[in-house]
Amino acid sequence: MRIGILGGGQLGRMLALAAYPLGYRCTVLDPAADPCAAQVCSHIRGEYDDYQALYQLVLASDVITYEFENVPVATAEWLAERKPVYPPPQALAVGQERLAEKEFFTRLGIPTPQYRPVDSEADFHAALRDLGLPAVLKTRMYGYDGKGQAVLRTPQDCQQAWQRLGGRPLLLEEYVPFERELSVLAVRSRDGQVRIWPLVENQHIDGILHRSLAPAASAEELQERAAEYVCRILDELQYVGVLAVEWFQDGPRLLANEMAPRVHNSGHWTIEGAYTSQFANHLRAITGLPLGSCAMLTKNAVMYNFIGTLPPLSDILATPEASVHVYGKSFRPGRKVGHVTLVATSTEELEEKLPLWDELFARRSVSTTDAQNGLPL
Amino acid sequence: MRIGILGGGQLGRMLALAAYPLGYRCTVLDPAADPCAAQVCSHIRGEYDDYQALYQLVLASDVITYEFENVPVATAEWLAERKPVYPPPQALAVGQERLAEKEFFTRLGIPTPQYRPVDSEADFHAALRDLGLPAVLKTRMYGYDGKGQAVLRTPQDCQQAWQRLGGRPLLLEEYVPFERELSVLAVRSRDGQVRIWPLVENQHIDGILHRSLAPAASAEELQERAAEYVCRILDELQYVGVLAVEWFQDGPRLLANEMAPRVHNSGHWTIEGAYTSQFANHLRAITGLPLGSCAMLTKNAVMYNFIGTLPPLSDILATPEASVHVYGKSFRPGRKVGHVTLVATSTEELEEKLPLWDELFARRSVSTTDAQNGLPL
Repeated sequence: MRIGILGGGQLGRMLALAAYPLGYRCTVLDPAADPCAAQVCSHIRGEYDDYQALYQLVLASDVITYEFENVPVATAEWLAERKPVYPPPQALAVGQERLAEKEFFTRLGIPTPQYRPVDSEADFHAALRDLGLPAVLKTRMYGYDGKGQAVLRTPQDCQQAWQRLGGRPLLLEEYVPFERELSVLAVRSRDGQVRIWPLVENQHIDGILHRSLAPAASAEELQERAAEYVCRILDELQYVGVLAVEWFQDGPRLLANEMAPRVHNSGHWTIEGAYTSQFANHLRAITGLPLGSCAMLTKNAVMYNFIGTLPPLSDILATPEASVHVYGKSFRPGRKVGHVTLVATSTEELEEKLPLWDELFARRSVSTTDAQNGLPL
Repeated sequence: MRIGILGGGQLGRMLALAAYPLGYRCTVLDPAADPCAAQVCSHIRGEYDDYQALYQLVLASDVITYEFENVPVATAEWLAERKPVYPPPQALAVGQERLAEKEFFTRLGIPTPQYRPVDSEADFHAALRDLGLPAVLKTRMYGYDGKGQAVLRTPQDCQQAWQRLGGRPLLLEEYVPFERELSVLAVRSRDGQVRIWPLVENQHIDGILHRSLAPAASAEELQERAAEYVCRILDELQYVGVLAVEWFQDGPRLLANEMAPRVHNSGHWTIEGAYTSQFANHLRAITGLPLGSCAMLTKNAVMYNFIGTLPPLSDILATPEASVHVYGKSFRPGRKVGHVTLVATSTEELEEKLPLWDELFARRSVSTTDAQNGLPL
C-alpha cells in the first residue's frame, strides 16, 4: 500500500517510519526543498495548490492523508475525487478555521470558552464589551504554536493587538482561568470503530507545547466526558484517522479549545507508552485495517519537546529510560527539532524521577498561569 | 552520523528504521539487487569481498557494523583499518566457525555440549565412539536456521549424514536432552558498560525460530548465570554492540549452543516490550552513546515469526495488542518475511491470551523434543 501525505514535517516523518513495519511506503508532498520527512521516504516538491504536483501524488498513492491542517480544503476535495482521502476534507474545513470550529463544537453541545466573531473594529469593541477583560484575540486561520494570538488585559493591549492582527478575520474569546490544558487523541476506523488514548496534560512555553504527561492525573471522570465529546465529533464528521482535541479544564468542566484533524504533538508519547502509537493507528485507520489497542503499556509516559536546538544525544540518553526522536531539521529559534519520551512503570517511579527529568529536559520552569493560551499574560 | 551495515536483510532494515529517530542514516551493502533494507535506506550493491563496493561503503559511513555473521573476517579487518567497525572483527571470527566458538566458550569456562572436531571419516567414527548416539553432526561454517545439521540416532542416520555433509570441516556434538532453549541478548558500549535483556525462551519449527517468550519463565537463577557468562564473552572480545548467545537448559545448567555477534531474531520483542530495543541499543553502542535500559516495559512479550508467507494484515491486527513488522520480502518457503509481537501487562493476561495467540499465530504446535537442535528427531 502506498500512502500519500500532504506535508513533510516531523509528523509526516514519523508517519513514514510507522508505515514501514506495516509494509507500506509513503510519499510526502511539501513545498520545501528538503523537508525532514524526505530523509525517510519519497518526496514530491510542490505547493499545496500546485495541481501538477498533486497529480503526481495521486499517481504515487493508494490513499492520501495530511500531517497539518492548513492544506487548502479545495486541494483535499480535488484529491478526494481521485483517491481516498482521510480524514475527510470536511474535517479540514472545520479544523482550520477557528470560528467554524467553535460553532461546530457548539452545535454538537460541546462546551467552549465564550467567543465572538470579529470582522471589524466595531465588532471588536462590541465583543470586548460582551466578554470583558482579560480576553484572547485570535486570527481565525493559520494559527499554530501560539502564533496569531494576543492576550488582552488592558485597553493598551487591545489597541496593540488590533494594530497587529486587525483587518483579518478574527475571534475574541473569554479568558478562561483554567487549571490545566488537556488533550485527547482518538482514532476512528473506516468501519466506524473508535479507540481513545488516555487524556494527556500539556504544558506550554511561549505558546509551544513543552511537556506532555500521560495519563493526566486524577482524570477518570474527565476521560469519560472527553471520550463522549470526541465520539460526537468523530461520528458527525464520519471521521477516519487520528483526531486530537485540546481542552481547558475548569473545575469539572472541559472546554474545547481546538481540534487538529491529524496526528498531534501531544500524542508522541504513544510511540513508547501505548500498545499502539498514534502513527500506527492513523495508518491502520486510513488503510482499512483493524485498530490497535490505545491502552498504556506503562504506568506513565512523559514527553518533552526540544525547541530550537537539541542537546547532545549523549546528554539526553544518559537517562537510561529516555527514548529520543530527532527530526533531522536544522536548528532555528521556536522550531520543534526533536522530542524525548520517558516512561515509568509505577507512580512511585514517576514521582521519584519526574523532578530529575524536568531538570534535565525543561528549558525553564513554567507555571500554569504563564502557559494560559500559550501566551504570557 | 552515517552507519554502514554489511547485509541488507530484515535485521539491517530494522537497524535502519531505529537509526532515524537518533538522527542517523544508514547504508547497507548487500549483493542482492533489492534487499529488503534497501526499501528504507541507501544501498550499495556488491559482494562482501568486492573491495570497490566496500570502499564505497567506507566513504558513505562514519562507523560500520554487520547484520549477519558470515561476512568474511578479512573484509571486516580491511574495513576496520579505514573506519571504526563494531562488533570487533574478532567476534565474527569466533561466531562464524562452530569449532572456534565452542573452544572459545570452553576457554572462558562456559559449559557447552560435548563436542569433537571431525575433519575425516576416521575422526567421525572416533567421535561417534566417544560421544555415542544420539548425536548431532554440524558443518563448522555457514550454518543458520538449522541448515548444515543432522541429528543422528541410528547407524543409518550416520551414514546418510556423512554422505550429505562429509568432506567439509565438521563438528560432532552430544545430543543434549534439554528442557528448553533460551537466549540472552546483551549490549556493551564503547566504554565497557554492559546491559542485559531478560532471558528469552525460544521454540523452533523445522530449525527456524518460531516463537520467543520474554521473559523465560522461572529463570531468575539462570538469568544470573547467563549474565555472568555473557559478560565473560563481552569482556574477552572487548565487544561493542549487541551480542546474542543461545543456550540449552539442562536442569540448573546452561550449555552454550552458539553466539551471534549481531542483533538477533530472539530480540525482536524488545521493540515493543523493552525500554530500549536491541536495534536502538546496538546503534547507541557502536556510535559511542550511553546505553538505554534493557528492562521490560511490559510483564510479558511474545514474538511469532512469519515464515514463508504472511497472513493478511487484517487478520494479524484483529488482535488489538498485536504489533506487526512486515519485512518487505517476497514470499518463499522457509524465509522469514515478518513477525508479530504481543505484549501482556500481567501474568494473568498472558495466561489468558497465550493460547489464543498460539492458535492465531502458530503454524502448528511444536513439542520441546521436536525442536531439539531445530531438527525433528
